[in-house]
Amino acid sequence: MTQQVLLSERVRFVETDMMGVVHHANYFAWFEAGRVLYLRRCGIDLNELMQAGILFPITEAACQYKASARFDDVVQIWTLLQEFSRAKLIFTYDVVRQSDGRLLAQGRTQNVFTNHDGRIIRLPAAYYERLQRGPTLKN
Amino acid sequence: MTQQVLLSERVRFVETDMMGVVHHANYFAWFEAGRVLYLRRCGIDLNELMQAGILFPITEAACQYKASARFDDVVQIWTLLQEFSRAKLIFTYDVVRQSDGRLLAQGRTQNVFTNHDGRIIRLPAAYYERLQRGPTLKN
Amino acid sequence: MTQQVLLSERVRFVETDMMGVVHHANYFAWFEAGRVLYLRRCGIDLNELMQAGILFPITEAACQYKASARFDDVVQIWTLLQEFSRAKLIFTYDVVRQSDGRLLAQGRTQNVFTNHDGRIIRLPAAYYERLQRGPTLKN
Amino acid sequence: MTQQVLLSERVRFVETDMMGVVHHANYFAWFEAGRVLYLRRCGIDLNELMQAGILFPITEAACQYKASARFDDVVQIWTLLQEFSRAKLIFTYDVVRQSDGRLLAQGRTQNVFTNHDGRIIRLPAAYYERLQRGPTLKN
Repeated sequence: MTQQVLLSERVRFVETDMMGVVHHANYFAWFEAGRVLYLRRCGIDLNELMQAGILFPITEAACQYKASARFDDVVQIWTLLQEFSRAKLIFTYDVVRQSDGRLLAQGRTQNVFTNHDGRIIRLPAAYYERLQRGPTLKN
Repeated sequence: MTQQVLLSERVRFVETDMMGVVHHANYFAWFEAGRVLYLRRCGIDLNELMQAGILFPITEAACQYKASARFDDVVQIWTLLQEFSRAKLIFTYDVVRQSDGRLLAQGRTQNVFTNHDGRIIRLPAAYYERLQRGPTLKN
Repeated sequence: MTQQVLLSERVRFVETDMMGVVHHANYFAWFEAGRVLYLRRCGIDLNELMQAGILFPITEAACQYKASARFDDVVQIWTLLQEFSRAKLIFTYDVVRQSDGRLLAQGRTQNVFTNHDGRIIRLPAAYYERLQRGPTLKN
Repeated sequence: MTQQVLLSERVRFVETDMMGVVHHANYFAWFEAGRVLYLRRCGIDLNELMQAGILFPITEAACQYKASARFDDVVQIWTLLQEFSRAKLIFTYDVVRQSDGRLLAQGRTQNVFTNHDGRIIRLPAAYYERLQRGPTLKN
């Protein structure tokens, strides 16, 4: 049983571009912040993971843009762990403007796990079980 | 007849993250720089386009990551206009490390054209013809 | 009577670099977010200002770094309007790590006001009065 | 005898903000790229330095902005090692727009040297001598 985790962020001025909207690359930073929160709510601390020699490089990332986020908008990033194994995680994301509930973008990332030499590894059971239990409502 | 256009960039320190590699979001900035160069080689200046009231928001972006770019690597961004109409452009990108020719990532973006109110428009014929002629080898 | 306004931000993974700490350029984005919050608490909305034809380019920015912010730290950005006139604003910033209260950085920015042609202008009285009243505690 | 080293960069779209100019934080990334080039021309490779356990955190950064860089401008970053010892480096930077030679910004950074635990160290003699010899004209 997986569930969405909500992160709210206010759009920074630096995230805009000269078309007057949030530059499309910045959505991937929001997805990442959503993913970090999701994992924290599962009891997985990425600093701890890295200290244990486990890296989590992104192997695929994609986004569909429906409408523009603008400076000072509060955006909600709804993060879902769509699919997971000890070899990889697939997250999906909905970005919604808080003021009117409009869906701005939908994203997806896939990451694997590697050691510091870049070799693919499997996520240790202790962490995997936390993913299976899923996120707590609040942390 | 379309063809690939080559842009070379040296990886900046600021583009790395604490995993010691280029953060995945930065590839989209490289794709963009490749796209801008491709269009310039076709005779399309994006400043001119914006002054003519034509915006070009990204509606889809995706990347598959094969190997990590690292600080100080010279990366080659090979940009191809995969598909185009007066309504949208689809570019694909290969990112290759110059030192060993290794393919690091492959990307794809789709953009439409809009006016300043966000309404979808069709690219004026004068610009479309330049896309049809394709890029010159050097500009 | 001026007072400090507090913004809390959690360090994003994308804000780190390969030295394992927050890249120094990112502090300027935090200062900006602090400044935007300060102005909002004074009743000044930057979107409204831009729509009124008033831009606010940064003319000076500086930061002294005392200790490193790290991924997942919660940092407090304490923003103070140090000096202001209808011609320019000078803000100062203290960045403090929430967990241990350590001062990480101190910054300063100066901005002027211009119209869309880049000409220096004076801030209209209606906005200036809001700066004089200062920030409300919460908005 | 120190001398300026020239790096040219084309302004990326992602570097602009909704005021239609390059966001002020991005100049620090240009300074950094200039500094990296300066050091490379002295025979100092920052990857090698990090592998030798030497980090080089920025302790001070400042910029004065004179005029705006815009999308697609080619900017020249002139980097000078203003002052150096085995304890710290102070670089200064002039950012000039290539098309008209206009000075856009002037910056300054100071960095120290530390080990991976954050302790201040002195730059080993082998590297220090390369700074004393200064940059070669081309590398």
